[in-house]
Amino acid sequence: MVRTRIGCDSLRSKVMSAQDAASLIKSGTTVGMSGFTGSGYPKTVPLALAARIEAEHAKGNPFRLRVWTGASTGPELDGALAKADGIEFRLPYNSDPIAREKINRGEMEYFDMHLSQVAPMAWQGFLGPLDTAVVEVSGILPDGSLIPSSSVGNNKTWLDRADKVILEVNRWQNSQLEGMHDIYYGTALPPHRVPIPLVKPDDRIGETVFRCDPAKIVAIVETDAPDRNLPFSKPDDVAHAIAGHLLEFYSHEVAKGRLPASLLPIQSGVGNIANAVLTGLVDGPFENMTAYTEVIQDGMLDLIDSGKLRMASATAFSLSPDAADRLNTDMGRYRDKMILRPQEISNHPELIRRLGCIAMNGLIEADIYGNVNSTHIMGSRIQNGIGGSGDFARNAYVSIFMTPSTAKGGKISAIVPQASHVDHINQDVQVLVTEQGLADLRGLSPKQRARLIIETCAHPDYRPALADYFDRALKHSYGLQSPSLLNEALSWHQRYIETGSMRA
Amino acid sequence: MVRTRIGCDSLRSKVMSAQDAASLIKSGTTVGMSGFTGSGYPKTVPLALAARIEAEHAKGNPFRLRVWTGASTGPELDGALAKADGIEFRLPYNSDPIAREKINRGEMEYFDMHLSQVAPMAWQGFLGPLDTAVVEVSGILPDGSLIPSSSVGNNKTWLDRADKVILEVNRWQNSQLEGMHDIYYGTALPPHRVPIPLVKPDDRIGETVFRCDPAKIVAIVETDAPDRNLPFSKPDDVAHAIAGHLLEFYSHEVAKGRLPASLLPIQSGVGNIANAVLTGLVDGPFENMTAYTEVIQDGMLDLIDSGKLRMASATAFSLSPDAADRLNTDMGRYRDKMILRPQEISNHPELIRRLGCIAMNGLIEADIYGNVNSTHIMGSRIQNGIGGSGDFARNAYVSIFMTPSTAKGGKISAIVPQASHVDHINQDVQVLVTEQGLADLRGLSPKQRARLIIETCAHPDYRPALADYFDRALKHSYGLQSPSLLNEALSWHQRYIETGSMRA
Repeated sequence: MVRTRIGCDSLRSKVMSAQDAASLIKSGTTVGMSGFTGSGYPKTVPLALAARIEAEHAKGNPFRLRVWTGASTGPELDGALAKADGIEFRLPYNSDPIAREKINRGEMEYFDMHLSQVAPMAWQGFLGPLDTAVVEVSGILPDGSLIPSSSVGNNKTWLDRADKVILEVNRWQNSQLEGMHDIYYGTALPPHRVPIPLVKPDDRIGETVFRCDPAKIVAIVETDAPDRNLPFSKPDDVAHAIAGHLLEFYSHEVAKGRLPASLLPIQSGVGNIANAVLTGLVDGPFENMTAYTEVIQDGMLDLIDSGKLRMASATAFSLSPDAADRLNTDMGRYRDKMILRPQEISNHPELIRRLGCIAMNGLIEADIYGNVNSTHIMGSRIQNGIGGSGDFARNAYVSIFMTPSTAKGGKISAIVPQASHVDHINQDVQVLVTEQGLADLRGLSPKQRARLIIETCAHPDYRPALADYFDRALKHSYGLQSPSLLNEALSWHQRYIETGSMRA
Repeated sequence: MVRTRIGCDSLRSKVMSAQDAASLIKSGTTVGMSGFTGSGYPKTVPLALAARIEAEHAKGNPFRLRVWTGASTGPELDGALAKADGIEFRLPYNSDPIAREKINRGEMEYFDMHLSQVAPMAWQGFLGPLDTAVVEVSGILPDGSLIPSSSVGNNKTWLDRADKVILEVNRWQNSQLEGMHDIYYGTALPPHRVPIPLVKPDDRIGETVFRCDPAKIVAIVETDAPDRNLPFSKPDDVAHAIAGHLLEFYSHEVAKGRLPASLLPIQSGVGNIANAVLTGLVDGPFENMTAYTEVIQDGMLDLIDSGKLRMASATAFSLSPDAADRLNTDMGRYRDKMILRPQEISNHPELIRRLGCIAMNGLIEADIYGNVNSTHIMGSRIQNGIGGSGDFARNAYVSIFMTPSTAKGGKISAIVPQASHVDHINQDVQVLVTEQGLADLRGLSPKQRARLIIETCAHPDYRPALADYFDRALKHSYGLQSPSLLNEALSWHQRYIETGSMRA
C-alpha cells in the first residue's frame, strides 16, 4: 500500500478525480499551470480538461483557455490542450510540436516572454486575473504547506495570485525532494522592492515549501506519473568540437587572469551541445565550480559525480530517463549539491549580473555582426521561444552563443548576412562558437566582428558568399557602421523558402 | 583675482599648460576621457592634443588613439579629435557630427555599448589597458580627493584604472557642486560582487568625491570654460501630443491601481519630446515624484520648481544655456534635490528593476511587431548609439518608446514592416507612442501588437500600406507567429535610399 503524500488531514476531503477537478475550470478563463522544461507539470488534470474541451466542441460549444506556465511542459499538457484546440492564448514559452504548429498556422496567440519577467508581470496586473492554478507538488505537509515537485517555475506566484487552486500530488516524484527547494518570499512590487540577499549559488534565502491558503484549494488529485524525460542523444563530433573550442577559451581566460580558476557560475541551455560542454568540463582543469542556471540536465549530474561541481542552482530538472533514474536512486547524495528556486530568482538580472554568470545558449542563426535569432525560423515561424536566454545573455560576465555552422544537412547556414529576426542584439553576444571555431567578439566594432565571424565561425561552404556580401556592402552600403545591402540582406532566407536551400 | 580650485599644496607643482599635458599622451594608446551628454568633459587638453595630432600628421607621422568616455562629449573633444583624424577606436557613445561622419565613412571603428556595462567591462580586462585618464573636475580638496564636475560618467573607473591621470580643474563649474555627487565604491568583479544598497532614488550610498592616487597625477590644467550647453528648441505640437497621450496613460494606470499616485521613478531620454513630457507633468496630478535617470535636463528643473519632483538621480546634466544659468544661480536650492552618480549605478539593471523605473526613450523606427531601431538609419548608418536605452528598457516597470510618426517631412515612416536594425526586441517595448496615439502592447502576441501599432501609432499616410503588408503577410508568410514577407520587409528602406522617400 502506498502511503498518501497528503499529510494535512483537513485537505483530504478535497481529493477527487482529474475529471471532477477539470470540471471546475471554466471556458474563457486563465489557468496558471506548473511545469518547466518538461518537469513538474500536472499530468492528469490537463488531459481531463482536454477531453472535456473536445466534448464541448463536439457539442458546438466554444471552450478555450488562456494558459500560463513556467516554461515548456509535456504532451499531456500543451500537446493535449493544443490538439483539443483549447488554448486561445499561451505564455511564456512553448516547445510542444502540436502547439507550435497551431501557433505557426495562426490559430493560437503566443506571447513569448523573458522568463524572469513572468511572475513580476503577473503581479503588475496587465496580464489580467489568474482564475485557476493547476500545480503539481510532491507532497503536502501536515500544516498544509506544499512540497514542490521537480520544477519550481512560477508556482509560488500562481498559488499566490490564483482565485482557486487545483493540486496534483504526484507520488512518482522522489520524496527526498523535500528540503531541496528554496522559495524566496521577499519579492514585491516597486516601490517596495529590496535587494535580493543572494551572493553565491549556494545561498539559501527562502523556505523549502510553498505557502498556500487552504481556503483556495478546490481540488486535489493524486497521481503517479513520470515527467516527460526524453532520451538523450549522445553528443556528435560537431558538439564535441564546439565544446573543445569553449574549454580552450576558458583555459585561455583563466591563464590571462580574466576568469578565476574555478570559473564563474555556469548557465547552460539544454541539448546535446550543452551536454557536450558539461561533459568536457568533467575532464577539464577547473575545480570547485558552480552553476547558476535554469535547468539541471544530464551533464550536471556527471559534473557533480566528478566532484568538480560544488553546487547547481536552477529552477527545474531536465533529465533523460536514465539520468532521472540515477538522480532518484541516489537523491540523498545529490540533494545537498542542488537547489531549485522560482524562475524569477534563477533568472533574475540582479543575480545574474552580481554572480557574473558564464552564459551558454544556443541559437537558430547569427548574422555577420553577431545579432542572434533564437526563436523565429526564416524570420516568421516560431521554434520555441526566447526563454531565459535574454535574462542571461544581457547580464552575463561572458555571454556565449553556440551552434553548428549549418543545419538541414548543409542547406541552412547558421551565419547569415542579416538575422531575419533578432532576439539578442550584438551588444549581448560576446562569444560566438561553431564547430569551425570560436570568435571572441568582446570590444570589437561591427566591422571587426563581421570579419572575425565570417573567418572563424561560418562553414567553408558559405564563407565565400558571406565575405562577398560583406565586401560589396562595404562599397555600396548607405552607412558604414554596420554595412548592409538591403535588397540582399534577407535573400538567403527567401531562397531557402523557395528552393529548400540557402545555397545560391 | 580668482581663488585656485586646487586645495592640495603638493599637487600644485603638477599644474601646466594644456599643450604640455597633451604631450604626455602617446600615439596608439588608450585614453579615458570624462564627459557625458555634453557636460563635464575636458575642454582644453583634447584641443591641444588635436593640434598636436594634426602637426604630427603634417609631418607624415601616424598618431591615433583609442578614446573611451562616459557618453557624448563636446566639439572640443570628439569634434576636434575626429577632425584631426586622431581617433582609431571609440567607445561607448558618440553624438558628435564630425565623428559620426567619420564612422559612417568607415574611417573610425566605433563600439556602441550599453552604458551600464562600460565600467565593469573595463575592469574585466578584455578592452585592454587604459593608459591615460583625462578628467575634468570642479576642484581638488586639501587631502587630494577630487570634486566631480557636471557629469560623473565613468570617471571613477578611469581614475582607478589608468596608469596616469591628467586633470582639468574647471573653475567655470559651480563650486556648490561639492557634496551633490554620490560616488559608490562598492563595486567589484565577481565572485566578489554584493547587493548595491540603494532602495530609493534619494539614497546616498557612496562618497561625495573621487579618490585618486596622487602619484598617478602627471598633469593638472586649470580651465574656465562652459559645458556644451545647446539652446533648447521649444516642444512643437507633435511633442505636446505625445506628452498628452503619455499623461493620459499614466492617469489611467494610477486609476487602475497599476501605478502609485506618485508614479514610479522616471527615466527620460533627452530632446524636446522628453522635455514636453516633463513639462506636462508640471501641470499633471502626480505629486512627490522622483527620477532615476541618466541626465537631468531642462524639464527636470521645471518639475523641481513646481514642487512635484522630490529627487532627481542621474549621472550628468544636459541643460540649455538658460537652464544652466538657472541652476548655477540657484544651486543652493537645487542641490538638495539632485544626486549625480557613476553611470554604472545610474544605469544599473539591478537598480532599475528594483526601483521599477518608468522608462521613456526615443527611437529611429519601430516595426509593426514593436521591435525598435534606436541607432542605425536605414539599417547601416549610425546616428548616435544605444546609450542607456537598453539598460532601462529591459528592466523598466513600464518601457515606453516615443517618436513622431514620420520624419523628413513625411518621407520616412517611423513605423515600418521590419526594423532595418534592432536595438530593442519586442519583449522590451511595452508602450509605443506617436502623436497619432499610444499603443499599450503589454501582454499581447506579435499579431495583436501589429494590429494595434498600425491602427494607433502609424501616420495615416502610411497606415494603408502597413495594413496591406500585414494582411498579405498573414496569407503568404512562412510562419504566422510574426508574419513577414522577406522580399518586401526592408523594401521601404531601400526605396528611401533610392528615391528619398519611403512612399510607394
